[in-house]
Amino acid sequence: MTRKELIDQIKIKKSFLCVGLDSDITKIPKHLLDLEDPIFEFNKQIIDATHDLCVAYKPNSAFYESLGAKGWESLSKTEKYIPENIFKIIDAKRGDIGNTSKLYARAFYEQMNFDSITVSPYMGIDSVTPFLEYEGKWAILLALTSNVGAMDFQLIQTVKDNKKIFEKVLSISKKWGNDENMMYVVGATQAEMLKNIRDIVPSHFLLIPGVGAQGGNLQDVAKFGLNKDCGLLVNASRSIIYASSGMDFAEKARQEALNMQKEMAGILEKSAVL
Amino acid sequence: MTRKELIDQIKIKKSFLCVGLDSDITKIPKHLLDLEDPIFEFNKQIIDATHDLCVAYKPNSAFYESLGAKGWESLSKTEKYIPENIFKIIDAKRGDIGNTSKLYARAFYEQMNFDSITVSPYMGIDSVTPFLEYEGKWAILLALTSNVGAMDFQLIQTVKDNKKIFEKVLSISKKWGNDENMMYVVGATQAEMLKNIRDIVPSHFLLIPGVGAQGGNLQDVAKFGLNKDCGLLVNASRSIIYASSGMDFAEKARQEALNMQKEMAGILEKSAVL
Repeated sequence: MTRKELIDQIKIKKSFLCVGLDSDITKIPKHLLDLEDPIFEFNKQIIDATHDLCVAYKPNSAFYESLGAKGWESLSKTEKYIPENIFKIIDAKRGDIGNTSKLYARAFYEQMNFDSITVSPYMGIDSVTPFLEYEGKWAILLALTSNVGAMDFQLIQTVKDNKKIFEKVLSISKKWGNDENMMYVVGATQAEMLKNIRDIVPSHFLLIPGVGAQGGNLQDVAKFGLNKDCGLLVNASRSIIYASSGMDFAEKARQEALNMQKEMAGILEKSAVL
Repeated sequence: MTRKELIDQIKIKKSFLCVGLDSDITKIPKHLLDLEDPIFEFNKQIIDATHDLCVAYKPNSAFYESLGAKGWESLSKTEKYIPENIFKIIDAKRGDIGNTSKLYARAFYEQMNFDSITVSPYMGIDSVTPFLEYEGKWAILLALTSNVGAMDFQLIQTVKDNKKIFEKVLSISKKWGNDENMMYVVGATQAEMLKNIRDIVPSHFLLIPGVGAQGGNLQDVAKFGLNKDCGLLVNASRSIIYASSGMDFAEKARQEALNMQKEMAGILEKSAVL
C-alpha cells in the first residue's frame, strides 16, 4: 500500500486506528476453542466487527509462533482475510545481516503479503534495507518503545551531538529510505517526546503502541505527533480484542474500536488533515 | 543444557564449533528438491556427517520462515533430530515487550526444545528476562555483530563513561542473568575487540559468527576470546554446509568441519582448558 493510499483511507474512515491482533490462545473466548482454528476464527470475527473503523491491522508474530506451524497457518490465513484497503503490519521485530533479512522479507512480503514489518534497528543499515526494496512495502523501525526496558539503551546519551540513541536511530536511518517506505515505532507512554521526534522526522508516519492497556493518552499523542497528512497510526490491542471474553467479544471489540474512532474523527476534524 | 554439560562436551570433542544451519532452498543440492522435505533432509545429512565434530547447531529462523508453515515444520523436525548432547541455538534475534517475549520463549523453549535463542537487546530488560526463566535455557544477546551495519549504532560512543553502545549492552545486561543463562554474540570480524569484551564479561560464553565465509580468523578469536572454560562457540555456516553443491555435499561438509575441529583441538591443547 502506498503512502497516498494510506492517507486516503485515513480521510475516508476518519480514523488512524490500528488494531493489534495479539491473539493469545489462553485469552480468547472459551467457546472458540472447539473450532478447528480458534485463533483464525477469533481474528476473523474481530476483523468483521472492526474493519470499517480502523485503517490497519497488526498481528504480533510471537502469538502465532507460540503455537508452532499451526500458528503460522493461522497467521497466514489472517493476513489473507484482511480486506485489501487496510494496511497490514506484521509486528515481528526482525532484523539480521543483509542476506538473512532478505529471507525475512521473503517470508512476510512474498510467502505472505504484509504491507510492512516492524524491524529492530540494532544491526544497522544492511539489516533494514532488504525490507525497503519492495514497491509499496514498508519497514517500521523501532525507535522509542513503550516498555520499561526502553530506558536501558534507547535513552542513553551519545557523545558527539548529545543526542539519545533513539534520536540517532531516527536521524541515521531516515537516510536509508524515505517517508514512503519507512515508519517508526514510538511508544505513547512517552507522548511529550513526540515533539522532538517530529523535529527529526516531520513527515514520516509513526506507529504508536501503548494507547489503551499500556496507559498512553490519545489526545496527547495527537497534540504532539499529528502532521498535515495525519502521520500517525495508533495501535490498540488488548483494550479492543479482549473487551469481553464472552460470546459478545466481537460486538464489544467493535464498541471499543468505535469509541477510539470517534475520538480520532474529532481530532482529525479539528486539524488540517481533512 | 547447563554450562557444565556444555564445557564437558567441548572437552570431550576438543571442539567449540557451532554449525549454522542456514539452509536455503535456493542453495541446497538440486537432487534433494524432489524429496518431501528437502530442507530437513539436507539438515539431517549435514547433522549425520558433522555431529561428532561440533558442540552446537544453530538454525537461523529466517531461512525456515521464508518457506511458510512448511518451513516451520522443517525447523521443528531439525530441532528434534539434533542429538541430546549438542547445544541447540535458534538464531532468531527476537525481542519484544515482556509479555510478548514470553510467547517467543514458549515458541522456542516449549513448542520446540531449543537450549537457547539469540535476542536483540534494543528493547532492554523486560524483552530479555523471559528467556532466562527456564532452567538450563539461555538467552544469547547481540552485542557486536559481524555485518557492515554494526557500525551504525553499536559503535556509537556514549556520554557518561565514554563507552560504546555494545559495551553498555554487555555491562548493563550482564546483571539481568549470569554466565549460566546468558551468552553474547560477538562478530569475528572484530577479533581485536574481544580483549575489551573479555574485560567486561570474563566468564560468559561468546557466540562468534563470521569465521569462514564472512572472513574472520579462528586463531585471532581464540587469542583474544578464550577463557579458562573455553568460553567460545565459533559458528561457521556457509563454508561448511555449502562446501559442495553436489551429491557429496555432506562428505565435503564433514571435511570442512573436520578442518575446523582439528584447528580447535590444537588451540585447546595449547590452552588451560583441557
